[in-house]
Amino acid sequence: MEIENRKWILKERPQGLVKDSDFELIAETLPAINEGEILIENLYLSFDPTQRGWLNDVPGYLPPVQIGEVVRSGGMGRVIESKNAAYNVGDLVFGFVGWQSHCITKAEDDDRFRVIPELLPIPTMLNVMGTTGITAYYGLLELGKPQPGETVLVSGAAGATGSVVVQIAKLKGCHVIAIAGGKEKCDWLKEAGADDVIDYKNSNVHEELPKIAKNGIDIYFDNVGGDILETVLSHININARVLLCGGISSGYDASTLPDGPRNLFSLIIKRATMQGFLVLDYLPRSQKALEDIASWILEGKLQHREDIQEGIENCPQTLNRLFTGDNKGKQLLKI
Amino acid sequence: MEIENRKWILKERPQGLVKDSDFELIAETLPAINEGEILIENLYLSFDPTQRGWLNDVPGYLPPVQIGEVVRSGGMGRVIESKNAAYNVGDLVFGFVGWQSHCITKAEDDDRFRVIPELLPIPTMLNVMGTTGITAYYGLLELGKPQPGETVLVSGAAGATGSVVVQIAKLKGCHVIAIAGGKEKCDWLKEAGADDVIDYKNSNVHEELPKIAKNGIDIYFDNVGGDILETVLSHININARVLLCGGISSGYDASTLPDGPRNLFSLIIKRATMQGFLVLDYLPRSQKALEDIASWILEGKLQHREDIQEGIENCPQTLNRLFTGDNKGKQLLKI
Repeated sequence: MEIENRKWILKERPQGLVKDSDFELIAETLPAINEGEILIENLYLSFDPTQRGWLNDVPGYLPPVQIGEVVRSGGMGRVIESKNAAYNVGDLVFGFVGWQSHCITKAEDDDRFRVIPELLPIPTMLNVMGTTGITAYYGLLELGKPQPGETVLVSGAAGATGSVVVQIAKLKGCHVIAIAGGKEKCDWLKEAGADDVIDYKNSNVHEELPKIAKNGIDIYFDNVGGDILETVLSHININARVLLCGGISSGYDASTLPDGPRNLFSLIIKRATMQGFLVLDYLPRSQKALEDIASWILEGKLQHREDIQEGIENCPQTLNRLFTGDNKGKQLLKI
Repeated sequence: MEIENRKWILKERPQGLVKDSDFELIAETLPAINEGEILIENLYLSFDPTQRGWLNDVPGYLPPVQIGEVVRSGGMGRVIESKNAAYNVGDLVFGFVGWQSHCITKAEDDDRFRVIPELLPIPTMLNVMGTTGITAYYGLLELGKPQPGETVLVSGAAGATGSVVVQIAKLKGCHVIAIAGGKEKCDWLKEAGADDVIDYKNSNVHEELPKIAKNGIDIYFDNVGGDILETVLSHININARVLLCGGISSGYDASTLPDGPRNLFSLIIKRATMQGFLVLDYLPRSQKALEDIASWILEGKLQHREDIQEGIENCPQTLNRLFTGDNKGKQLLKI
């Protein structure tokens, strides 16, 4: 049986928001798979801000996507042919499937293709039980070490990671302040349990934060960087933990590095810690996170929502939704 | 017996480097001391960058010095009269004696006036066994957790804190790179054991650092902030620890906040930690540090040098020496 794969390859390095013309959507007839390989039919792609960073020619925690290569992306698919004993036809797998309709892989080099039990709908699993949920879980609990009664501030709070952080912080007895853009996202965050919300698109965070965070900030889970980070550093408490998870405000564009916070000194005055982390380091022991998250979902304690675009041809514009703030919840694309 | 006290009071808030006219040197006849008080004849004053910060009208870890108050400063003096059972005439005491020739205090509110056994010359004790030594000890060992073979970078390395950090890091088996200004300071740091030195006044740190730190930086003990911090963040290793001890490059002048590092993102890529700390938190358990430091000095393993100015009238200009880099070692003033 001949299978046509439609795939987006990188044609030139984007500046700022990506354009369709930075990539090329091509069709190829797939070869027969070799011993040890599996053929996956991709079902859903996951979009995360870090993917934009991989398109820059800058060394990072993963090598940059090279010109001519398929664009790297997480996602879920189903094994439709297997010459690898670890995978059966019909298995649902999670891994770096890429912006393409099909994917052939040896799937043995590392842990990047995991077989997933189908406990929940695929979009739900790609959201809260994917890397974003694991990021939220370990970042907040292991590094932030939230104590009941502490104030936790989350930026990018309506995003896939932020919204899980908000809710886990509430489950741990914290007072939670969420920053997000637009009334619709803020209303949803209130429903999801945030004690206070700040709509950065319709109010001045610099003025609002001190009014709302009267007891200061004990933990700041930062998904945005930039000006908001600087503002928050002026309101942290002694022994505060600032967790750097992302910097969406930079656009993940290597050519436009924003000025850093001018008040890093407050880390000294407040004996505070600022820590960066990557979910990759936690994946090998993600089981505990996935069990807890699954039980919270089944008990109705963890709300989630997915923004599902459709059609492989819409990959580039779907990535941009993360940076324009158009995404309502975890950004996915159904192939 | 009538005693005249000469003291510097704050007249107006300085901008940038201090001027004599920001203060007023006045003479007063001291009153008789009350029950519970002691009278101290000040012998040596200690000058530290943080003192400049106390002159700004900005909330900090200690209240700002108020207009009309004696300028706050650490130092050592001798008890010449005591109506407090905890102190005997002749005791050498360490505490916030201020820019003045004498000091009357109840000395009971807190631990700020400690009786010091005269094991070593007073300038030596005010240097490596004073707050700067304790800062170096706990900052490097407790927060930095240096492992043998790791690369430790120290800025402001010829200063009172930095030079102790350099030497303790060597004692712990680390590879140590020191940044200081001028050939004389750099030569001294080589003598004191630094493996490599970078003279920021006569070379380009941004260009030199990657050539010298070929294995990257595991621990950065930052006494300067600013551009050098940004440069270092581009060369940290995975799990690096960045210890923020001070920011001399800001001049500790509230009116001139420099831009922060534009590459805080590398804390994420490198899963690194940036932590601020204050020696105040470690003073209650400083005994271990003082014992270790004293034994290293007696064994000849810890070199130190003091820059001793003389005369109470020179207090303001002595403070400035820290910011112009004129000080050669721990800045003291003999009264």
